Amino acid sequence: MRPVNLFDYEKLAQERLEPAIWDFYHGGSDDEVTLRECRRAFERIRLRPRVLVDVSTIEMRTTVLGTPVSMPILIAPTAAHGLAHAHGEVATVRAAGQSETLMIVSTTAALGIAEVAAAASGPLWFQLYTHHSLEITGKLVRQAEELGYRAIALTVDIPRLGNRERDLYNKFVLEERTPLPNYPSQDITALERHMIDTWETVDWLRATTKLPILLKGILTAEDALLAIEHKVAGIIVSNHGGRQLDGAIPSIEALPEVVEAVKGRCEVYVDGGIRRGTDILKALALGARAVLIGRPIIWGLAVDGQQGVLRVLEILRNELEMAMALAGRPNLASIDPSLLKL
Amino acid sequence: MRPVNLFDYEKLAQERLEPAIWDFYHGGSDDEVTLRECRRAFERIRLRPRVLVDVSTIEMRTTVLGTPVSMPILIAPTAAHGLAHAHGEVATVRAAGQSETLMIVSTTAALGIAEVAAAASGPLWFQLYTHHSLEITGKLVRQAEELGYRAIALTVDIPRLGNRERDLYNKFVLEERTPLPNYPSQDITALERHMIDTWETVDWLRATTKLPILLKGILTAEDALLAIEHKVAGIIVSNHGGRQLDGAIPSIEALPEVVEAVKGRCEVYVDGGIRRGTDILKALALGARAVLIGRPIIWGLAVDGQQGVLRVLEILRNELEMAMALAGRPNLASIDPSLLKL
Amino acid sequence: MRPVNLFDYEKLAQERLEPAIWDFYHGGSDDEVTLRECRRAFERIRLRPRVLVDVSTIEMRTTVLGTPVSMPILIAPTAAHGLAHAHGEVATVRAAGQSETLMIVSTTAALGIAEVAAAASGPLWFQLYTHHSLEITGKLVRQAEELGYRAIALTVDIPRLGNRERDLYNKFVLEERTPLPNYPSQDITALERHMIDTWETVDWLRATTKLPILLKGILTAEDALLAIEHKVAGIIVSNHGGRQLDGAIPSIEALPEVVEAVKGRCEVYVDGGIRRGTDILKALALGARAVLIGRPIIWGLAVDGQQGVLRVLEILRNELEMAMALAGRPNLASIDPSLLKL
Amino acid sequence: MRPVNLFDYEKLAQERLEPAIWDFYHGGSDDEVTLRECRRAFERIRLRPRVLVDVSTIEMRTTVLGTPVSMPILIAPTAAHGLAHAHGEVATVRAAGQSETLMIVSTTAALGIAEVAAAASGPLWFQLYTHHSLEITGKLVRQAEELGYRAIALTVDIPRLGNRERDLYNKFVLEERTPLPNYPSQDITALERHMIDTWETVDWLRATTKLPILLKGILTAEDALLAIEHKVAGIIVSNHGGRQLDGAIPSIEALPEVVEAVKGRCEVYVDGGIRRGTDILKALALGARAVLIGRPIIWGLAVDGQQGVLRVLEILRNELEMAMALAGRPNLASIDPSLLKL
Ligand SMILES: Cc1cc2nc3c(=O)[nH]c(=O)nc-3n(C[C@H](O)[C@H](O)[C@H](O)COP(=O)(O)O)c2cc1C
Ligand SMILES: Cc1cc2nc3c(=O)[nH]c(=O)nc-3n(C[C@H](O)[C@H](O)[C@H](O)COP(=O)(O)O)c2cc1C
Ligand SMILES: Cc1cc2nc3c(=O)[nH]c(=O)nc-3n(C[C@H](O)[C@H](O)[C@H](O)COP(=O)(O)O)c2cc1C
Ligand SMILES: Cc1cc2nc3c(=O)[nH]c(=O)nc-3n(C[C@H](O)[C@H](O)[C@H](O)COP(=O)(O)O)c2cc1C
Repeated sequence: MRPVNLFDYEKLAQERLEPAIWDFYHGGSDDEVTLRECRRAFERIRLRPRVLVDVSTIEMRTTVLGTPVSMPILIAPTAAHGLAHAHGEVATVRAAGQSETLMIVSTTAALGIAEVAAAASGPLWFQLYTHHSLEITGKLVRQAEELGYRAIALTVDIPRLGNRERDLYNKFVLEERTPLPNYPSQDITALERHMIDTWETVDWLRATTKLPILLKGILTAEDALLAIEHKVAGIIVSNHGGRQLDGAIPSIEALPEVVEAVKGRCEVYVDGGIRRGTDILKALALGARAVLIGRPIIWGLAVDGQQGVLRVLEILRNELEMAMALAGRPNLASIDPSLLKL
Repeated sequence: MRPVNLFDYEKLAQERLEPAIWDFYHGGSDDEVTLRECRRAFERIRLRPRVLVDVSTIEMRTTVLGTPVSMPILIAPTAAHGLAHAHGEVATVRAAGQSETLMIVSTTAALGIAEVAAAASGPLWFQLYTHHSLEITGKLVRQAEELGYRAIALTVDIPRLGNRERDLYNKFVLEERTPLPNYPSQDITALERHMIDTWETVDWLRATTKLPILLKGILTAEDALLAIEHKVAGIIVSNHGGRQLDGAIPSIEALPEVVEAVKGRCEVYVDGGIRRGTDILKALALGARAVLIGRPIIWGLAVDGQQGVLRVLEILRNELEMAMALAGRPNLASIDPSLLKL
Repeated sequence: MRPVNLFDYEKLAQERLEPAIWDFYHGGSDDEVTLRECRRAFERIRLRPRVLVDVSTIEMRTTVLGTPVSMPILIAPTAAHGLAHAHGEVATVRAAGQSETLMIVSTTAALGIAEVAAAASGPLWFQLYTHHSLEITGKLVRQAEELGYRAIALTVDIPRLGNRERDLYNKFVLEERTPLPNYPSQDITALERHMIDTWETVDWLRATTKLPILLKGILTAEDALLAIEHKVAGIIVSNHGGRQLDGAIPSIEALPEVVEAVKGRCEVYVDGGIRRGTDILKALALGARAVLIGRPIIWGLAVDGQQGVLRVLEILRNELEMAMALAGRPNLASIDPSLLKL
Repeated sequence: MRPVNLFDYEKLAQERLEPAIWDFYHGGSDDEVTLRECRRAFERIRLRPRVLVDVSTIEMRTTVLGTPVSMPILIAPTAAHGLAHAHGEVATVRAAGQSETLMIVSTTAALGIAEVAAAASGPLWFQLYTHHSLEITGKLVRQAEELGYRAIALTVDIPRLGNRERDLYNKFVLEERTPLPNYPSQDITALERHMIDTWETVDWLRATTKLPILLKGILTAEDALLAIEHKVAGIIVSNHGGRQLDGAIPSIEALPEVVEAVKGRCEVYVDGGIRRGTDILKALALGARAVLIGRPIIWGLAVDGQQGVLRVLEILRNELEMAMALAGRPNLASIDPSLLKL
C-alpha cells in the first residue's frame, strides 16, 4: 500500500515499530481522554467554504518569528528520533530543509544539537528543558545560539513527567533505550534532571539569550497575558500531545481564548492532533500563525526515514493547499473566523 | 428481497457493482466526516406534526424556475451513469420523464447531452463544468440551450477535485472507465480540464445565455447574497455529497442561513444525504423549494436500470406523501418552520 | 429466569412469539428513529431527589377523568391481543381490574368491545378509530357508551397507517392474522377502513356522545390549544409508540409545551417508551396526570397471559413507589418540575 | 501484572471475587444509568492548567471537621468488607491509618464498631443507619462516641433499599452472607431494620450526641439549605454510588449547587465514580473539601487486603499530587473553579 494520508503512515509505523516503542510514541497520560478529545475537537468544527474565489494560485508562505517558511506547518519537538529510524534527527532535519520549513529540536533528541544543526539546511528552533543547574542550562542555550538556532521554545507544561501508563506496563524507560546527549549527565533519570520552571526562569532566560523566546504548553488566557508581560515572542498552545495532564482542554479549544488575550502582541502557534489539511485550516482560522506536527513526523520517519518525513510534510502541504482552494481562501490573510461554524 | 426503501437499494447496488465503482459512487473526501454528518444532521431534526388536518388529498406538484414538476424531488447531476447500467443516462432520463420530474444532466455524463435530450420526455437542466477555454464552454452552453435544456446549473464548489481516497486506493481514474463526451478533448484529465470559476464566470455566463442560471454548491449567506447581486435564478445549497471539502457544514444546516439571506429573491434548493420522505419534508420546512437526489438514483439504476430509478423516485414520492399526511401538511404551502424543533 | 423488570419480559416475549408477530408489536416506522429517541429522551432527564421526607406511606391513587384508579398507570390501546395470547384482551382486562387500573380498549381489538366489557371488573375507555361512514362510527360509540365505557379516546395521529417496514419485509397483514370484530366489514383493509378525521370529527363526536372525549396523538401546543377550544376532556401526548411519523419529537419532550398551553383546562396524559418507575416519575413531574403503557403489556401477555400483564403492572407500581420514596415524593401532589434537571 | 491504576485493581478484584459478591459490590440500581453517568460526568469536565507555578512542593494536608488528614481523600462507608477479605474492616482501617487518612465505618460493617476502632490508628467517623427504635439507635451512637469516633454521618438517601437487580438475579441476600454485628437483632432483614428518617431524626440526633453530624446523600440546594438550618457540620453530596434512585443526577454535577447554597456555612464532601487524581482535582475545584472513595477501596481489599487498600490510597495520592503539579496548583487553596471549563 502506498500511503495516501497520515493515518496510513500511522498504521505502517505501528506495524514496523517494536510495540513498546510504538506505545512510547503513541501514548498519552492516564486514560488518554485528552489524546482522544484532541482529535474529536477538530471533527466537531465545521467549515463554511466560500466559492467563486480565484484560487488558481494558493499562497501559504509565511514567516515564523521573522523566519520565512514555505508553509505554516512546523515540526514539533519530539524525543529520541533514533528509536524510530537509524538516522534519527538527521533524517528529520534534512526533510525539514527539503520542505523549506522549520524544525524545533528537542532537548531530548537522540543526537546532540550540534550534530542536528550540522545536518540542517533550513532554520531551527531549540526546544529547552531546563537543567536544575542554571549554569548548565545557560551553556546549552548559548551553544544553541552559537549553532544558529533562531529561537528558544521553553516547554512549560512538564514540571513532572505525565503518567504514561503504557510505558509503565511495558517497563519502558527512555534513558535505557537511547542516548540523550543534550543532558549533561546520565546519573539521574531524565525526568528528574530538569528543574521546576517559574516565571523567574523565563526572566532568567531572557537575560541569558538574545534569541526570541517561545513558551510551549500554555492553555489559558491568564498565562497568555503573563507571557506577554514577560515579553515572550511566541506562545505554543499545547497540551503536550495529551501526555501531561489528562483531562486538559483540547488545545484547539484553548486557542481562541489565548488569541483573544494576546491581541497580536506575540505570535501564537498550536499543536495536538493535527492530521489533515483541514485541521490546519481550522487552526489558522482560529488565529494560529502556524501549527506544529508531533507524532506524524515520527510515523514518516519510522516508515521511510527522511523520505517518509518529507512525504508526511508534503501530504500536509497538499492537503492544506486543497483545503484552502476548496474553502475559497487563496492566501493566509483570507483565512479568518468566518470560515468556521463552532 | 423486494426493496422497500432507499437503503435496500443501497445494499443491492453495493452487491452488484464492482467494488471500485461502488467506492467511486459512494465515497466522500478525506475522512468522510461531512458525508456522515449529512445523514446525522437530518436525524437530529425533530418534527412537530399537526393533527386533525384534512389530509385526504396531498398535493405536492410544484414548479422549479417556472417548470412544472409532479413533486419537489429532482435528479441531481451525477457523473457517468454508464458505469452503473448499460443504458446509462438514457435509463435515468426516461425514469425522470415517467415520474414527471426534472433531471439535471451532468457535464460528466457518459452520454452526450444531445443523446440524453433525445431520450427525455420531461424537462432537463444542464449542470455545467466550465472548460478553461470560454469559447468551448460557450459552445456547450449554446448546444444545451438549443437542445431545450431549461436552465444552467453552474457547479461552483469544485475549483479542484476533492481528495477522494477510495479512488486513490483503488487507482480508479474515471476517464479510463468511461467516455466523457461532453468534454471537448481527452488529452488531459477531466479534473484539470475545467477552469477556476469566479463571479466573473457567472457574469460571462449570464451574458452568454438567456437560460436562467443556478449556482450549485453554495453554503453561506455571504455567497448567497453575492449570487443575488449577480442575478442568479436559483441556488443549490450543497457540499457536493461530501466529496469536496471534508468538514464542510452539512447542507441542511447551511440551508437556513441561505434562505434567510435570499429572502425569496431567488429559488433555493438543497441536496446531500436525503434518503427519506421525512428528510425532504425537513428540507422544505427549512425553506427549500425542492431537493436533489444524488446517489440513490445511481443505486436504483445499478439494481434495475430505468425501472430501478423509477422505483426510487416513487418510493421517495410515497414517503413524502406519507410524511406530509402524518405531519398534517396537505400541500407545500402548509410546510413551514413551525414543523421543526431544531 | 424469573423476570424482575420489564426488559426481562421483553426478552422472554421475543423468545416466545413468532418473529413476524414480534416485529409487528415491536416495530416503529421507517428507520425507527422516534422509537429509539423515545427511550433516550427519558435517560437524558436527571432527577433531583429530596431527602429526609416522610415517605413511610406512598400514596399514588388518583382519578382519571373522575374515575378512581389505584395508580397513575393506564393500559394503552394496542391492537389484537389475541396474537400474543389465546385469551387476548380478556386476559388483559382482567389484569387491569385486578390492578385496579383502567384499560383503554382499542377499536382494533381482537375481541368485540362487548366481550371485553363483559370480562372487565375495572373501568374502561374506548379508543376510537372512525369508520368513513359516520353512521357506523356513531353506532360503535353508542355501543361503547351502553357497555359502560367511560370515555372515548379518539386517536388522531393516524390519517394513514405509518410505514412499518418490518411488516412489509415479513409480508405481515394484520387482517389475515386476526379477526377485528369492531370493524363493521372485512372487505377493505383495516388501514383504509377509517376516515380522515378533522376538528369537525371532534365536534361531531361531542354531539354524538355524552362521554368525555380525549384526543390521543397530540404533540404540539398549537393542537393542544385547539383541543381546548373543541372542549376535550383530555389529551394524550403520544407519537403512537414511534409507529407513525418517524422523526416525530419524543412524546416526553413534547409534554412540557402541551402542559404549558393547556394550563390545567383539561387532563394531560403521555405514552411512549415508558419502561421504569422513574420514567413515570419524570412524566408526572412534567405535568402528566398519568401515563399509558403500550408494548410492555403485550410482553406480559405473551409471556404469561393475565398473570403476566398483572405482573408487568405490579412491577411498574412497585418501581414507581420505590422511585417516589427515593425521590422524597410521598404523594402525587409533591411531584413537580423541581424534581428534574433537564 | 502489577496494577498501576485503580482500573487495574478493578479487573483483578473481579477475577478474584465470587461473581455474586462482585455484583453486589459493583452494581447500581435499575439500569445503572446513574452509575455510568457518574463516570462520564467527570470525563466531560475539562481542566485549564496553569504553568510556570512553583510546584516543587505539593501540599495536600487538610482537616476534615477539624481533624487533620494527610490528603483530601477519605474512605467512604461501604458494607461488609469481610466478603472481600478475611480481615475485613480491620484491614481497611489499618490501611487508612497508614495513609494518615480517615475511614467512615458503616453501620453495615461485617465487624462491630468496637472491633474496628480497636484496630484503628487513625481517625474514624461513624456512618449511621438508624434503627426504628430510637433507643437502640441512641445506644449505638453513644457507643461510637465512647469509642472515639469523631463524627456521625447519617445516610439520608436510603429510606428504602434501591432496586439492585444484580442481587435479585443472583438471589444474593447480604444477611445470609455476613454477620452485621452493628444491627441489634437478626430477626428482620437489614433493609427493613432501619427507620424512615426525617429532619426530626436529625434534630433528635443532634440532641443525642455532641459529635458533629454530617448528612450523606444530599443532591439539591434545597436540602443543603435545610441541612444548614438543622445545624449540620457537613454535607456529603452523593447518590450512594448509583445504588439508590436510578436517574439521579451525577453527584459531581450536583456539587456546584450545594456549594453555592451552603456558602461556606458547613463543609461539603462528594463521592461517586472517583477513580483518578484528576477526578479529585475537579471535585476540589468545584468546592468539595475532600472526596470519599467507595468501590476502589473494596477492590484493593479484595486483591491484597490491607496492602491493597494502602496501595489504592497511595495511587490516588500520587495521582492527585501529579494532577496538582501539572495543573499549577501546589496547594489546596490554589484550587478554584477557574481550573475548570464546564
Ligand atoms: C513521543 C513524543 C515525544 C515528545 N517529546 C517532546 C519533547 O521532547 N519536548 C516537547 O516540548 N514536546 C514533546 N512532545 C510534545 C510535542 O512537541 C507536541 O506538543 C505534540 O506531540 C503535538 O501533538 P501531536 O503528536 O498530536 O501532533 C512529544 C510528543 C511525543 C508524542
Ligand atoms: C458519483 C457522484 C458523481 C457526482 N457528479 C457530479 C457532477 O458531475 N456534477 C455535480 O455538480 N455534482 C455531482 N455530484 C454531486 C451531486 O450532484 C449531489 O450534490 C450529491 O450527490 C448530493 O448528495 P447525495 O448523493 O447524498 O444525494 C456527484 C455526486 C456523486 C455521488
Ligand atoms: C402493537 C401496537 C398496536 C397499537 N395499536 C394501537 C391502536 O389500536 N390504537 C391506538 O390508538 N394506539 C395504538 N398503539 C399505540 C399505543 O396506544 C401507544 O401510543 C404506544 O404503544 C405507546 O408506546 P409504548 O409501546 O412504547 O409504551 C399501538 C401500539 C403498538 C405497539
Ligand atoms: C458495596 C457498597 C456498599 C455500600 N454501603 C454503604 C453503607 O453501608 N452506607 C453508606 O452510607 N453508603 C454505602 N455505600 C455508598 C458509598 O458510601 C459511596 O457513597 C459510594 O460507593 C461512592 O461511589 P463509588 O463507589 O463510585 O466511589 C455503599 C456502596 C457500595 C458500592
